[in-house]
Amino acid sequence: MAESMRGLHRTARCGELGEEYIGKTVCMMGWVQKSRNKGGLIFTDLRDRSGILQILFEENECGAEVFEKASKLRAEFVIAVEGELRSRGKDANASLATGAVELVAKSLRILAEAETPPFPIEEDSKTKEDLRLKYRYLDLRRPDLAKRIMTRARLSQLIRAFLSREGFLEIETPTLIKSTPEGARDFLVPSRLHQGSFYALPQSPQLLKQLLMVSGMDRYFQLARCYRDEDLRADRQPEFTQVDMELSFVDMEDVLEVNERLLQYIFKEICQVDISLPLQRMTWIDAMENYGSDKPDLRFDLPLLECTEAVRGCGFSVFSQCVENGGKVKGILLKGQASMPRKKIDSYVELVKGYQAKGLAWFGYAEDGSVKSSFAKFMSEEDVKRLTEATGLEQGDLLFLVSDEKKQVVWNSLGALRLALGKDLDLIQKGQWKFLWVTEFPMFEYSEELGRYQAMHHPFTMPMEEDLPLVDEEDLSRVRAKAYDIVLNGTELGGGSVRIHQSHVQEKMLEKLGFTKERATEQFGFLLEAFQYGVPPHAGLAYGLDRLAMWMVGAESIRDVIAFPKGKDGSDAMMDAPAEVFDPQQLKDLHIAITEE
Amino acid sequence: MAESMRGLHRTARCGELGEEYIGKTVCMMGWVQKSRNKGGLIFTDLRDRSGILQILFEENECGAEVFEKASKLRAEFVIAVEGELRSRGKDANASLATGAVELVAKSLRILAEAETPPFPIEEDSKTKEDLRLKYRYLDLRRPDLAKRIMTRARLSQLIRAFLSREGFLEIETPTLIKSTPEGARDFLVPSRLHQGSFYALPQSPQLLKQLLMVSGMDRYFQLARCYRDEDLRADRQPEFTQVDMELSFVDMEDVLEVNERLLQYIFKEICQVDISLPLQRMTWIDAMENYGSDKPDLRFDLPLLECTEAVRGCGFSVFSQCVENGGKVKGILLKGQASMPRKKIDSYVELVKGYQAKGLAWFGYAEDGSVKSSFAKFMSEEDVKRLTEATGLEQGDLLFLVSDEKKQVVWNSLGALRLALGKDLDLIQKGQWKFLWVTEFPMFEYSEELGRYQAMHHPFTMPMEEDLPLVDEEDLSRVRAKAYDIVLNGTELGGGSVRIHQSHVQEKMLEKLGFTKERATEQFGFLLEAFQYGVPPHAGLAYGLDRLAMWMVGAESIRDVIAFPKGKDGSDAMMDAPAEVFDPQQLKDLHIAITEE
Repeated sequence: MAESMRGLHRTARCGELGEEYIGKTVCMMGWVQKSRNKGGLIFTDLRDRSGILQILFEENECGAEVFEKASKLRAEFVIAVEGELRSRGKDANASLATGAVELVAKSLRILAEAETPPFPIEEDSKTKEDLRLKYRYLDLRRPDLAKRIMTRARLSQLIRAFLSREGFLEIETPTLIKSTPEGARDFLVPSRLHQGSFYALPQSPQLLKQLLMVSGMDRYFQLARCYRDEDLRADRQPEFTQVDMELSFVDMEDVLEVNERLLQYIFKEICQVDISLPLQRMTWIDAMENYGSDKPDLRFDLPLLECTEAVRGCGFSVFSQCVENGGKVKGILLKGQASMPRKKIDSYVELVKGYQAKGLAWFGYAEDGSVKSSFAKFMSEEDVKRLTEATGLEQGDLLFLVSDEKKQVVWNSLGALRLALGKDLDLIQKGQWKFLWVTEFPMFEYSEELGRYQAMHHPFTMPMEEDLPLVDEEDLSRVRAKAYDIVLNGTELGGGSVRIHQSHVQEKMLEKLGFTKERATEQFGFLLEAFQYGVPPHAGLAYGLDRLAMWMVGAESIRDVIAFPKGKDGSDAMMDAPAEVFDPQQLKDLHIAITEE
Repeated sequence: MAESMRGLHRTARCGELGEEYIGKTVCMMGWVQKSRNKGGLIFTDLRDRSGILQILFEENECGAEVFEKASKLRAEFVIAVEGELRSRGKDANASLATGAVELVAKSLRILAEAETPPFPIEEDSKTKEDLRLKYRYLDLRRPDLAKRIMTRARLSQLIRAFLSREGFLEIETPTLIKSTPEGARDFLVPSRLHQGSFYALPQSPQLLKQLLMVSGMDRYFQLARCYRDEDLRADRQPEFTQVDMELSFVDMEDVLEVNERLLQYIFKEICQVDISLPLQRMTWIDAMENYGSDKPDLRFDLPLLECTEAVRGCGFSVFSQCVENGGKVKGILLKGQASMPRKKIDSYVELVKGYQAKGLAWFGYAEDGSVKSSFAKFMSEEDVKRLTEATGLEQGDLLFLVSDEKKQVVWNSLGALRLALGKDLDLIQKGQWKFLWVTEFPMFEYSEELGRYQAMHHPFTMPMEEDLPLVDEEDLSRVRAKAYDIVLNGTELGGGSVRIHQSHVQEKMLEKLGFTKERATEQFGFLLEAFQYGVPPHAGLAYGLDRLAMWMVGAESIRDVIAFPKGKDGSDAMMDAPAEVFDPQQLKDLHIAITEE
């Protein structure tokens, strides 16, 4: 039976009991980690979020009744113990933060008993995630997961403190808003008071933060809950948190500057890492050409080599025809890897096919001067010489090449190959924090599916001033945007842009993106109208807080830094949500019915 | 045409330009508040969120071209001005924070032109709220509203800093959860991936924060977005923000103690008020008996007087029969108000009828000894004497009385009358901050509508230990709960309770509240299951942040402390939400259809 804690007052948390408490009477509460009887003594490990404290029950200290009660303690019982804190002297347990002390119990209350949990509460759980998600409240008792949630809380607090000091106001924006479908699907919320109408949950506070700039709030931030009803790819959540900010009267440089200091601050405080500023920058086109990625992992080198000119007119028609048709040929050179097993090479051929490459050409130049290659036999000696000169290929080296008429295919497939090679060849030194700003993104990207251009970032991004004349040309792919992403070790932490602040530019961009005037008004009319009343130049940025926290604590999934995450199908196994409604009247009230489709 | 701000860098905000800048070249940006040509000079007031700065265009300082451009400035244009800051000497404008300086312009860029706004941007707007909500981004430019939003941001930051220092972790809980209808209606979110299933938006994170305690998080807080699909009464919002907290290993005293210090801290920082601790406390029954309210306004006295015994068996049968039947008679005595006009008295009679009182009896004992009364003629001299002795009625006084068999009717009607009298007779001295804890709330309240008892707070509230035996009796109204509300000047700022942490107590309470075992399992099964694995004693509290902010800034509506509030019908006039979906496919994807009902 559960006893009351009436009259008791907890002295401190377990991990807070320093040596200054030695000799003092303390009252401690927490969960039993384990309890064992050894030589007529009972040793109980008491656990709370801060750590573990050893409790000692000696019958002649605590009396027979308490000793008897203590002998019944089992894992996860919740208890309160009063007694004297004692130094463990030479018996100190160095593996515990509080290992130098122990509590000699005088009294014991069992505040709550506990069934045996469905999995043990211990670090590095090997329990399947499904079961851990169902009993998330038990999983959160595991010290490694608990610490991650605590670190995330500290991270949020640091971000808020920093941005507040920098003159940002945290302003809450509504989450029952208008559906403006563009990008991912909206979650909809049927309105009871307005039959047939729906609110949408925000994919981000984008338009609202721009309106805050129109309203003169000058600098805004918010740790904003955002929602995307996507088919769940690995490690996505239908609801997630964004560190969202917007600044007025700034250009890109100002946004980057304050964010570099923010990153420096939080990484110093949480990871004890010194980041030197300014951070490295790279244009989007350089990132694609050199690393085949708009978020290159710079913890290792291995750049993509330009080979298009070197194979022009060569005997291998796959290359020469591709170049003839305006295509691109690039390669990756691996020093000293000429003897890579054929099986391994074949696995890379398969890899690039997953990125729409038609194949992966390879050229191994063994130490003994012999050549093994998928294409060398089609090439003249002169052809080979041009290629080796262009790439720096020497005896002992292996060269991979991809050619395609679409440069995006060359970039993507070699970018993926580069990452795989970096991992397989163990090129990534641990403990590196390679930050990078990627800038000058294309404004538009062509969607084969839609048969028109789309905004690569979003329709409110400002084109670079020098590219404004290009907006009127047929080929919009050359227009660069004042957009920027912040990349860490090959992961995109966040991104943003300078926004358009002139209604005539905004209207033109929407037109180029295929919005009819009617549709633009219906969807963004309130923003376009706001732009008529004096908009300051403004720019912003948003981080994925979950992803940032995940990197900072070294977790492998964002689920490890979210207290109650959804599973892979968007469901909550603990609460059993989503679920059927309790009462059909709930749907009637909302003027909706479930269809069979 | 909008000019670029390329090459310009803002020096500071308008209100930040102190005398240390005098003689220096500065670059300032903001909105034109007004601009006027006077004696060949142009005076322009530049506004941003921090204040107003006077700019002076002199043709021989800035040249003809800039002067010409400046002559075209109109209200709400966004401009950048470079020039030298000069002391205004004896021309200083004491009504402006920056009135001692002015900026003598050298150059001017018009960053954005502006149409004439639909209402003037000025303090104490007289514009109708409907129009202001539609153009909220313009309304937010008004300094009084902008300051309130800024104060709210500061309040949030202070609350977070205080609670973090006290060992609370800010943990985000999910907002796509399971519907557990109890109390208000849930907003539902149809699931696309799970046909026929719905998420609900949380009315509060109640169950989740209790699970965080089960998980050992020890102290949790969150500025949590909450949702209630209610018929909108005055000054409610479908989404609102709660300062939500929960603590483990505590009893009521611990919760009150830390919250008193929190209140002291934020009221000192924001309102410069010194609150002395501990705060006053009152049991619920005392609050009802003495003030007719569970949130009494203690800025004035005027208590409810007990008259039941004094009128027992009197000649006025309304009273005597009411008492006979177990009813209650209470009164309010107004010193020196015997000559209150009959018309005024009649208005109070009408008032109490709105609270289901059958009438309001009154007794005026004029200075000349004459009596005017609605009931004295039915009473003997002895009857009158007992009543005047019980109430302390003297010559010159007026006594109001309400009798009813239901004590709730007596309390409610006299509680409302007391507030009306306090206002009408101007009894409330300004500048008072009367905080009060109301404790020992009833656990259950009987719902005539449902024909059963309901939880007054919620089903997870712990009964007072001494009242636990009463839970098995028929009349549950005597069971008191470990619940508490914090009241300021007659407004409930927040409330909370010690929670049940034993599954057998929780199961019994749900049974008493009319939950079948099946329904309890379906709705709260995950909580009941969690309770089997070792739950610490825990308690919590939540404030309405919007209401708290409203009080602290002296606003009259919570809409004044929310950046983008909904209107009275739950709609957003600015974005036009809720709205019909753009594409019927959105509903098909969600497996729902709109019904005609």
